[in-house]
Order: sequence, then structure tokens, then C-alpha cells
Amino acid sequence: MKKPRTVGIRELAAHLGMAISTVSRAMNDRSEVSPETRKRILAEAERLGYRPNQSGRSLRSGSTKAVALTMRTDIGRTMSGETFFMALSEGLQSTLANVGYDLMILPCASDQDENEFLYRAVDRRLADAFIISNVQRIDPRIDYLRKWHMPFVALGSSETKGDYAALDLDFAGVAETSVRRLATQGHQRILLGLTAQETNNNYVFLAGFKTGLEKAGLAFDERLVLRLHDRISGGYELASTLLAMDDRPTAALLIQETMAMGLYQRLGEAGLQPGKDLAVIGFRENPVCRYLTPSLTSFRIDLKQYGARLGEMIIAELDAEAKGADRSDFVHEVWPMELVPGKSDGAA
Amino acid sequence: MKKPRTVGIRELAAHLGMAISTVSRAMNDRSEVSPETRKRILAEAERLGYRPNQSGRSLRSGSTKAVALTMRTDIGRTMSGETFFMALSEGLQSTLANVGYDLMILPCASDQDENEFLYRAVDRRLADAFIISNVQRIDPRIDYLRKWHMPFVALGSSETKGDYAALDLDFAGVAETSVRRLATQGHQRILLGLTAQETNNNYVFLAGFKTGLEKAGLAFDERLVLRLHDRISGGYELASTLLAMDDRPTAALLIQETMAMGLYQRLGEAGLQPGKDLAVIGFRENPVCRYLTPSLTSFRIDLKQYGARLGEMIIAELDAEAKGADRSDFVHEVWPMELVPGKSDGAA
Repeated sequence: MKKPRTVGIRELAAHLGMAISTVSRAMNDRSEVSPETRKRILAEAERLGYRPNQSGRSLRSGSTKAVALTMRTDIGRTMSGETFFMALSEGLQSTLANVGYDLMILPCASDQDENEFLYRAVDRRLADAFIISNVQRIDPRIDYLRKWHMPFVALGSSETKGDYAALDLDFAGVAETSVRRLATQGHQRILLGLTAQETNNNYVFLAGFKTGLEKAGLAFDERLVLRLHDRISGGYELASTLLAMDDRPTAALLIQETMAMGLYQRLGEAGLQPGKDLAVIGFRENPVCRYLTPSLTSFRIDLKQYGARLGEMIIAELDAEAKGADRSDFVHEVWPMELVPGKSDGAA
Repeated sequence: MKKPRTVGIRELAAHLGMAISTVSRAMNDRSEVSPETRKRILAEAERLGYRPNQSGRSLRSGSTKAVALTMRTDIGRTMSGETFFMALSEGLQSTLANVGYDLMILPCASDQDENEFLYRAVDRRLADAFIISNVQRIDPRIDYLRKWHMPFVALGSSETKGDYAALDLDFAGVAETSVRRLATQGHQRILLGLTAQETNNNYVFLAGFKTGLEKAGLAFDERLVLRLHDRISGGYELASTLLAMDDRPTAALLIQETMAMGLYQRLGEAGLQPGKDLAVIGFRENPVCRYLTPSLTSFRIDLKQYGARLGEMIIAELDAEAKGADRSDFVHEVWPMELVPGKSDGAA
């Protein structure tokens, strides 16, 4: 089968013996072109199967009508059932579609530099606006986006200074609430499982943990803070560390709920039972953890709503950019999460 | 804070008192512009913070240098820990990056028509090539992509006729191997759990199931084929149906492994044990299922490699498109999967 090439405006113009600019004006229904010429051009376009290129339209409107969400695809995360982004995208995409915008997810592979990845996408103007995730404590992407006046929302808070919009889960609140709950149950030595990355939520979670300890009148012990390299296996590692301790903590708080899977497994191997021998609180209520026994105490968020809110925020940024207005109204929003008590914690 | 608007080529030209076309030629280093004029334009561009728009570059090269992967975000799937796409993207994105292409995932929300969604993305030329997933038995998207000569790969096979590239997992082989394994273990009545969608792999899996029965000398019973609406809860539903049967099947084969979670739960509630009271084989070895006890018999695939192969295939399509060559070499590739015996099946 002979596969014909796509006919571009250049070829269409050549077929017609006309200037590209004339063809372009005709395709855009501009008055400089006579109705007869326009008719002839459209007929030829139809015959040749030419269709106007979006890139051409973009050049004129300066817009791609797309919002990009950057995301790391680290095998480690994905293998742990990290479904957060897909559920979030559901609400985000619907909200953007309502105003004629497309959502594109730009996955950054683990062997790529996340900053360079974003710079490149911005340079190429792959989208009209960006949502950056996996926000680092100091995140140079924020400066870059600001420098180039690209509308964006940081999905996660950061120490990077400057006015910009940000949306985050209430990591501090979850940690504080969890510690106070565990303290009320009589726990005095609480192990904290963080991730090993420089993601800002590690710091926020730790701060909330410390606040909770302080309010409960408990001392902070640096040795009880573990930084784990992976999710499920990180929970396994955490349990192993705990089992080897002389003065064993009676509770564990996890920044990522899938860690609980490995933790449950390791405890089981040692003949210990979560909820009875160790109080465990995970972070987010995750369907992947639904089948853990005993049920994991965690915190609920409606990710579809959260995605919809993110959509509203990026649309507001696009609007503000279009208006070129003075800005003193950047939203920094932290979403509360609701405690869902399970059977994995309780009296010390 | 005063947020300056992005300076576009129009404003830059206005500042310079020059025609947009002159500025454009200068930015593209074209010889029609004198070195002095070019220097002046670049200095002003630098001063105003103008940067060339990728869309402008696209108009000239006719290329976005991006490949789009379409994906449904159905909450039902995402809530079941469907991490398939993220792991696949890892290999796909790396392969594309090697040749200077970006991967963008276009998530289609559950309230949107998947066909219209694709047509719109093609019309807008969001990418130079497309990978469509969730391929339907008869999939009009294939015709549309062919009609507009858009390079693409179908991630999944289809009954839609025509020459095009496709990559799929070996659904037929997995079903046949599973049935023969169960038959060898002495099972004669095997329940088949499919999904309720018109996804083509339902049909392929059923065909492999029938082939397996035939080769094992077992009769096919239409009543043992269930079409389930969701993943985890679908497994629960399947177990409930099974428990209510007079002539209860002794084995169950699932097209989607997370169904096993709900199935295990329902069996547990009935005091029954997978592997002992019911032989169960899931589809793909999934880390989310790693913590099921007894371990689930399933089939292994390296998703990073699979994604890399998909990348090679779409690059081949882009190359062929660029060459405008005669095509009789469309690849339709089916990837074998390797049995990983667990403890969820065994003697009847």
C-alpha cells in the first residue's frame, strides 16, 4: 500500500500556484482574500486532504490550549501502586475540559534530571501552563517558571521563596494529629518513616511530627526518624530496624501508606501483629491497602475533588496571565485530610 | 508584585518598529536580515525577555517532537492500583528521549467519549504520533488515525481491518496456558472472569480460554463466563456468584489480577481458602498483589522493556511517515508472558 504523505500548507500553496501567506489567510477566513480565491483554495485543500496544522493556529493565538502536569515514573514508586496521579488526573482533566483546555501528563523517567526535563518542556512551550509535582525543598523549577512568566501551580509546598500558587495535602496536620492520637493511646516512643528524597513533604511531615510530640509533652528522638528508600520494601526495612532496637518503639507513623504492606509482612514473619504489638498509622487511605488485615488507620482525601481544585487554580493562573494584572493574590492552599480510624493502632 | 506579561513576537516587533516577519527571520537566523538588524533585534529580545515560541518553530518544521499516549483514568481502574501505565511509561519515555522525542500522556476522564477525545487531539496536532490504549474490538480511532495519515501504534489488538502497527500482551496464550495447567491439576469446571468493557482483550482472552478447554478435552460452558464491572469489587462479585452456584466450579481464571483481591476477601468471609478450596490464576504478576496469601499464580512481563519496545515501534512509524515509503511492513507484535507459579492453584 502506498501511504501518501500528509499535505502541508507549503504543498497546498505549490499546487495552487499561490503564496503560502494567501493560503494561510484563506484558511483563517480573513477578509484580505476574495471569496472566489478562498473557495478555490478550500476546494483544493479538501481534494488534497490538507488540514490546518494546530501549530499554525498556535502561532497566531500564542496558545496550545493545554496544561502540562509533570510526574516522575520511578519504577520504585510505580511498583508500589502509586495510583495517586491517575485519580487526581480524573478531576483535573474534567475541570480543564470544561474551559476548552487539554491536560497532558509529562512523565519524567528515573534516569532523567527532573529540572532539565521541566526546563526543556518550558523552552519548547509544550503547554500554556504547567503543574509541577514532587516539589523539592528548594526547587529551581519554580524560579525557572517565574523567570519565563509561565503560568504554573506547584503541587506541593516548598521553601523556595517568591509569590506563586501552590496546592498541597496537609502533611503537617496529618503528622500532628497522628502523634497526638498515638500519645493519647499511651505511646511514648513513636517511629517515624519518611522517604529518602529531598521532597519538601518530608520536612513538613517531620515538622508536624515534632509539633505533635511537643503538644503531647513527649521528647523528640532523632534516632526514631528513618529515611527509607522505597515504598513497600521501605516498610519492611523499617520493621526490621524496629525489631533490632533495644528500646523498641510501640508505634510507627508512615509518610506513605504502601510502606504498611512491607511493615505488616515483616511483623508477620516475626510473629507480631500490627495493632496489637505495634500501633501503625499510614498516610493516605489507599484502595491498594484496603485488604490489609488489620485495617490501616489512615487519612481520607477525595482525589477527584482535589484534582478539580488544582484545575481551578491553574485556570486562575492562566486568566491572570492573560490579563497581565498586578498580582498579590497567589493562592497557597493546604487541603485537610480526614482521619479514618482502622484497627492498626490502639492502646500501647 | 507586578507580574510582567510574556513578551510575544508581536510586541517585540512593535517595540522595534519592525514587521513581525523581519523579527521572525532574524530569530531564525535567516540570511534575508542584515547582521546589524539581527543584532539589534536580538539585543531587544534579550532586554524584553522574549523567547521564541515553540509553536512558531513547529509551524516551520511541521513537528512537535512529541508522542502522545492516550489513557483512560476511570476511577474504577485507578482505585484498583492499575500501575500498568506508569511502569510502561518509564521504558517508553526513555526510548523516545534517546531520539529527541517527548512523551505526553493524554488522560481521558471517564465522563468523556474516548473516540472524540482522540479525534480532538489529532485535529489539534498535539503530537507527531499517537499510541492508543484500551483498544476496542472495533475501534474507530484506528480508521481516523489512518485517514489523517497520523503515525500511530495500537497498544492492543483489534478486529478493525487495515494495515497498522500494534503491540499487545499475549492474552490468548495466558488463557490457554492457564486452562491447560488447571486441567492437568484435575479441574474440569473453570470460572472465567472478564471485564464488562468492549476492550478487545476480553475477546482474545475468551478465545484462548476456549482453545485451552478444547485441547484439554473439556466442554465450554457459557454460564461460567462472567463479565465484571470493576476490578477489586469485580473479584468479590465473582466469588459471590461462584458460592451461589449449585455445581460449583473448582477453579477461576481472571483477566485482571487485582480481581483476586476481592475474590480472596469474599472466599475468606465464606471460610474458604484460595488454593485449597478454589484454584485461582490471575493475569499479570503485579506488585500490588504481592501481599496476597496464598501467593497468586500469574504471568510475568517486564513493563519497562515492553514500554521500550513500544517506543521503538512508534519511532519506526515516524520514520516511515517521514520517508513516505510504501508500507507492507506493519508490525503486529504479541508479547509472551512467563508463568510464575504461586500457591493459589493446585490439585482439584
